[in-house]
Amino acid sequence: MPKKLTIPQIIKRIREFRDDRDWMQFHDHKNMAISIIIEAAELLEHFQWKSRNEVEQYVQNNREEIQAEIADIAMYLFEMADNLNIDLLGAMDAKLKMNAEKYPIPKAKGKHTKYNRL
Amino acid sequence: MPKKLTIPQIIKRIREFRDDRDWMQFHDHKNMAISIIIEAAELLEHFQWKSRNEVEQYVQNNREEIQAEIADIAMYLFEMADNLNIDLLGAMDAKLKMNAEKYPIPKAKGKHTKYNRL
Amino acid sequence: MPKKLTIPQIIKRIREFRDDRDWMQFHDHKNMAISIIIEAAELLEHFQWKSRNEVEQYVQNNREEIQAEIADIAMYLFEMADNLNIDLLGAMDAKLKMNAEKYPIPKAKGKHTKYNRL
Amino acid sequence: MPKKLTIPQIIKRIREFRDDRDWMQFHDHKNMAISIIIEAAELLEHFQWKSRNEVEQYVQNNREEIQAEIADIAMYLFEMADNLNIDLLGAMDAKLKMNAEKYPIPKAKGKHTKYNRL
Repeated sequence: MPKKLTIPQIIKRIREFRDDRDWMQFHDHKNMAISIIIEAAELLEHFQWKSRNEVEQYVQNNREEIQAEIADIAMYLFEMADNLNIDLLGAMDAKLKMNAEKYPIPKAKGKHTKYNRL
Repeated sequence: MPKKLTIPQIIKRIREFRDDRDWMQFHDHKNMAISIIIEAAELLEHFQWKSRNEVEQYVQNNREEIQAEIADIAMYLFEMADNLNIDLLGAMDAKLKMNAEKYPIPKAKGKHTKYNRL
Repeated sequence: MPKKLTIPQIIKRIREFRDDRDWMQFHDHKNMAISIIIEAAELLEHFQWKSRNEVEQYVQNNREEIQAEIADIAMYLFEMADNLNIDLLGAMDAKLKMNAEKYPIPKAKGKHTKYNRL
Repeated sequence: MPKKLTIPQIIKRIREFRDDRDWMQFHDHKNMAISIIIEAAELLEHFQWKSRNEVEQYVQNNREEIQAEIADIAMYLFEMADNLNIDLLGAMDAKLKMNAEKYPIPKAKGKHTKYNRL
């Protein structure tokens, strides 16, 4: 079994892939955000028109494709965070703390209401 | 300086946040993909109508907001990968290898042409 | 009851609104496509996490907001078509004919399968 | 030259196309909004990574594809409005009037600032 990668290692590989191709010139933040949403739509397209049960079945039979779509989003997202010098895990942790305040357990439990309507 | 988080740690926190609120019932894969694209649009909205220079200026002055938007996408993406038992970094590494074949350096260098038109 | 507007009339109003504000400089096709997807995400956000029944209920109680979101998408779409000299209804009619060939009734009836998998 | 279609005529054709295939069962509002955003991403993908000049060149050489993408969005949007009994042109006109108040000409002229920051 291969050794698990770390985030700094994957970021290094993303940078190399990009810079070997001299693509930084295209990777301004607006273009990165565009690419993230295009990939997000490709992921969503797999579930278009499907019921919850059909989706569950589909992901079992099309694991590779779903995994590749998620990886596409992740690559642009990790690179964009790197370009902005954002520590992605730290940013997630900070956001989780903010969300915990926006959605107190007693109020939010079992409900999908947005915080400004809670 | 706080100790850096690891991916398993952040995933554990995402799970706890969700399960404390009994939200797994809403987090089927289709709903997760919808949430990813909604957050991706919120990120993109920051750059709407802006030129490259304006975007560069904007991210300097609105770092917190951009970081929070990226974190929002990441949280749904990490959770979705976790729900599907996908090793996110491994998936990214596999995709990078596929992309390296689709975009050979001599052909792709300095060009943003899609592989099927290269 | 007010007289119904025609498409040329609404396009004229969209153009005037834009040109009174000297906004054509921002309305290149890429920026228009970005604005369309941002508005599409705002429409989708109304249905985030909701079941089919909840959506049905929600649209009854939030008609004005849904109507405004749909209008936002339509305004950018009509303007973009106008900027490209595209006859929107003619383009839709042409696409309907193409789709009728891609999705023959006997094969497609009652199924949401994409044409390339039918 | 063929006679120009009217909106009621195109809506009739969209309904027939859908109902001949018994697809109304899939066309709840959430699924329609998902389809709109997926098509919006396909339109945007044509402009991915491209500069303003490249986009201008591209639309000249790929008119048919762009027209088809715009038609795809329009078909779902017109159908969704129809399903909700929304008069699309009337909704657009109402929104234009609201926007005229949000963006007074003297304040908004030549600027792409959002109304809440104007």
